[in-house]
Amino acid sequence: MNKKMVLKILGYVLEFQAVFLLFPCLTGLIYREWSAGYYAGVAAGCLLVGFLLTRLDTGSETFQAREGFATVSLSWILLSLTGALPFYLSGQIRGFVNCFFETVSGFTTTGASILSDVEALDMCMNFWRCFTHWIGGMGILVFIMAIAPLVGGNNIFLMKAESPGPSVGKLVPRIKTTAKILYLMYFGLTVAEFLLLSLARMPIFDAICVSLATAGTGGFAIRNAGCGGYTVLQQGIITVFMIAFGVNFSVYYFILCKKIKDVRKSEELRAYLGIILVSIVLITWNVAHMFDSIFQAIHHSAFQVGSIITTTGFSTVDFDLWPTFSKTILVCLMFVGASAGSTGGGIKVARFLLWFKTLKKEITTSIFPNSVKRIKYDNRPVEHAVIRSANVYLFLYIIIFVGSLLLVSLDNFDPVTTFTSVAATYNNIGPGLALVGPTANFSGMSVVSKLVLCFDMLAGRLELLPIVLLFVPRMWKR
Amino acid sequence: MNKKMVLKILGYVLEFQAVFLLFPCLTGLIYREWSAGYYAGVAAGCLLVGFLLTRLDTGSETFQAREGFATVSLSWILLSLTGALPFYLSGQIRGFVNCFFETVSGFTTTGASILSDVEALDMCMNFWRCFTHWIGGMGILVFIMAIAPLVGGNNIFLMKAESPGPSVGKLVPRIKTTAKILYLMYFGLTVAEFLLLSLARMPIFDAICVSLATAGTGGFAIRNAGCGGYTVLQQGIITVFMIAFGVNFSVYYFILCKKIKDVRKSEELRAYLGIILVSIVLITWNVAHMFDSIFQAIHHSAFQVGSIITTTGFSTVDFDLWPTFSKTILVCLMFVGASAGSTGGGIKVARFLLWFKTLKKEITTSIFPNSVKRIKYDNRPVEHAVIRSANVYLFLYIIIFVGSLLLVSLDNFDPVTTFTSVAATYNNIGPGLALVGPTANFSGMSVVSKLVLCFDMLAGRLELLPIVLLFVPRMWKR
Repeated sequence: MNKKMVLKILGYVLEFQAVFLLFPCLTGLIYREWSAGYYAGVAAGCLLVGFLLTRLDTGSETFQAREGFATVSLSWILLSLTGALPFYLSGQIRGFVNCFFETVSGFTTTGASILSDVEALDMCMNFWRCFTHWIGGMGILVFIMAIAPLVGGNNIFLMKAESPGPSVGKLVPRIKTTAKILYLMYFGLTVAEFLLLSLARMPIFDAICVSLATAGTGGFAIRNAGCGGYTVLQQGIITVFMIAFGVNFSVYYFILCKKIKDVRKSEELRAYLGIILVSIVLITWNVAHMFDSIFQAIHHSAFQVGSIITTTGFSTVDFDLWPTFSKTILVCLMFVGASAGSTGGGIKVARFLLWFKTLKKEITTSIFPNSVKRIKYDNRPVEHAVIRSANVYLFLYIIIFVGSLLLVSLDNFDPVTTFTSVAATYNNIGPGLALVGPTANFSGMSVVSKLVLCFDMLAGRLELLPIVLLFVPRMWKR
Repeated sequence: MNKKMVLKILGYVLEFQAVFLLFPCLTGLIYREWSAGYYAGVAAGCLLVGFLLTRLDTGSETFQAREGFATVSLSWILLSLTGALPFYLSGQIRGFVNCFFETVSGFTTTGASILSDVEALDMCMNFWRCFTHWIGGMGILVFIMAIAPLVGGNNIFLMKAESPGPSVGKLVPRIKTTAKILYLMYFGLTVAEFLLLSLARMPIFDAICVSLATAGTGGFAIRNAGCGGYTVLQQGIITVFMIAFGVNFSVYYFILCKKIKDVRKSEELRAYLGIILVSIVLITWNVAHMFDSIFQAIHHSAFQVGSIITTTGFSTVDFDLWPTFSKTILVCLMFVGASAGSTGGGIKVARFLLWFKTLKKEITTSIFPNSVKRIKYDNRPVEHAVIRSANVYLFLYIIIFVGSLLLVSLDNFDPVTTFTSVAATYNNIGPGLALVGPTANFSGMSVVSKLVLCFDMLAGRLELLPIVLLFVPRMWKR
């Protein structure tokens, strides 16, 4: 392990964090809040430490898979630790574990909160909460790669460790350009949502925060009523953009390049939209009697389905009151998650497609043992390593899930709270059901449970391996 | 598909069913119950149809994987349909779906009941319930193979489709001899339990029924209090035998052959006993305050852990009242299940071991991409096909689980009832939690849910593929 190289990149990360922190600081200045000063202070600290770390003499330029995993997971932990400081120092959130939980929940685009009254926070605090979603959505190292020259030619290991999905699709041969294009599209879509929400007469500050939180598929609300207080039109715009940010960004690149044939060919896009459509129809049918009109039922079903499958976690109604069938669908969608290469979390539609194809092949082999067939994805044969790691992912996913469940169950909450608190954080959604439902929050959990859920949020966002490898001693050997 | 050959074997199965039905008939005669006549009648019908089917001219002797899968799954459905008739015709259980549910639950060694008052049944009915457990435990086709000459040399396909676990271990080169040895050990252990329970002064009829239900890891109780009414010594004997029947039977064969080294080498045995021990310790610690003495806590923890991990489903106390941590452990054990090659259900410890090894290998490959390592099990390298089908099994397992959950959730029970009703039947355990907890039963479910759970019980017992393939059109083509 080339530890010095890892430390050096962490230095860059801290420098970038300093820049990020200036945004809430600026927000505070605009709204004349004293608490803006904490952001300036923490930014200065990050800059100083970052500067020192980047001066490190790394010796060798070795940067392989190991270093990639370690850098990514440590970066995210470091971002969350420093990002939690303004909450803690200002005293606006009590207890460092709570501050850490809220920040991890922000960067990992989970949106699970320990706050019962978000409106009591300063504007700069709420802005920071939503801004962490935006940074975490596309990935911090992808961002750094887009604009700074890092290490030699081995950035692929960083991208592999940070990008969601079973395999990393580069849009163009150069990683730096790929990262740049990704962030430009991301920025463009966020601005588009902001403009539309403003046109729909949402207050500017709300429109900014909601756009940032939607873009990262985060889900922090800055109103106590969640998205329940916005107009139907505003909610509709949010629905469309939530679903849009759950699409694999390569689809948008194809659209930009006018490769419409490639868009149509995308199996994941079709599956993703298909699941959304079927879920909306089933839930609408199931909850129709609870609303005044069928339009209302469709509207709220679509919002909730879009919110959960993309792992955003916004809510317009308390879906914990819906019938068990609807709740079961929503819990299933929590696990399905969004598309690979999107800003959403969960297991990802692409993995399910791979598994279905593997299953289909196995069934054929069972009936006709001599048949030879290769698994194809988007008409291209899939490498064995991709299938293997998707399979391992599934098992590791279950292990971490069960381990977390056991630890959280020590709090002795009811089984539904226990199960959905893990499901909602691990898949980076936010609200679960019962005591952690859309109208409740995570403040009642013990410190141990909160830390377990922080681990789950990080593991979920970084797709397990990078975080798990931190605990493997062999990782750290020379 | 050689349909005639499948039908011919189904004929043999019906003939054997006729013989099985004579046992409850005899029980009825001993206790002078009129309902014994129904068993005689159904037995006669089975014998007649069976005789006609076995006369079929099969033409070709083709018998491959396809025919194996179809024969096994159709046999189990046929056994359950005919086995339900005495319940239905005698009117002791109302509604054919209920009778079918109870019989499927019997043969698949689930032990989930729709009866709220089992003591109201005739003795012959209760004997038949427990006897179905015994038949289903080791497998009906394995039984037939042990004593009858079936088709050419292709019995391996039948054994593969009916035996639990990721791969079929033949004890001796000849399948017929393997089947014979398995049934002899099975019979011997059952008799041993019966003798010990009798020595511990359990009434003879109870001792017979409990031994049959323990041996098959079934779990039907013939007392309304479950196993709660038996003495501590009797419960202790049941605990030991439940755990014993969850051990891979090859271990007993090694003991018989005095290959103690092979017993010690068995990774699955160590893991299985390790999981049991850890679970007992954790649950004892968690429930100690609910009992008068630590001995009581250990006793009931051990009974419940043994009952759930072996998927038997007996209960001495209402563990639905235990803290969430203990319940979470028990629900996890539902999925872990017993050892491969035992009479227990669930996913099987052997599969978890395989998955852990695959995970370990993947972690090594992630850190050191150039490392080459082969997965070994009991010191022997594992074939790629075994790992592949274990992986596919996991995904198929999840698909069926989620599908069942969605269908059962239409009944609009609380989430815990919905989830554990599927978990408890799919893994062939019996009782779940909440409305299907150890003191409750499945009678409140809708007809659709009951049929879904019947499917789950069969799919669980036959390890998914045989039952799933029934619905694949290509299976049936020539």
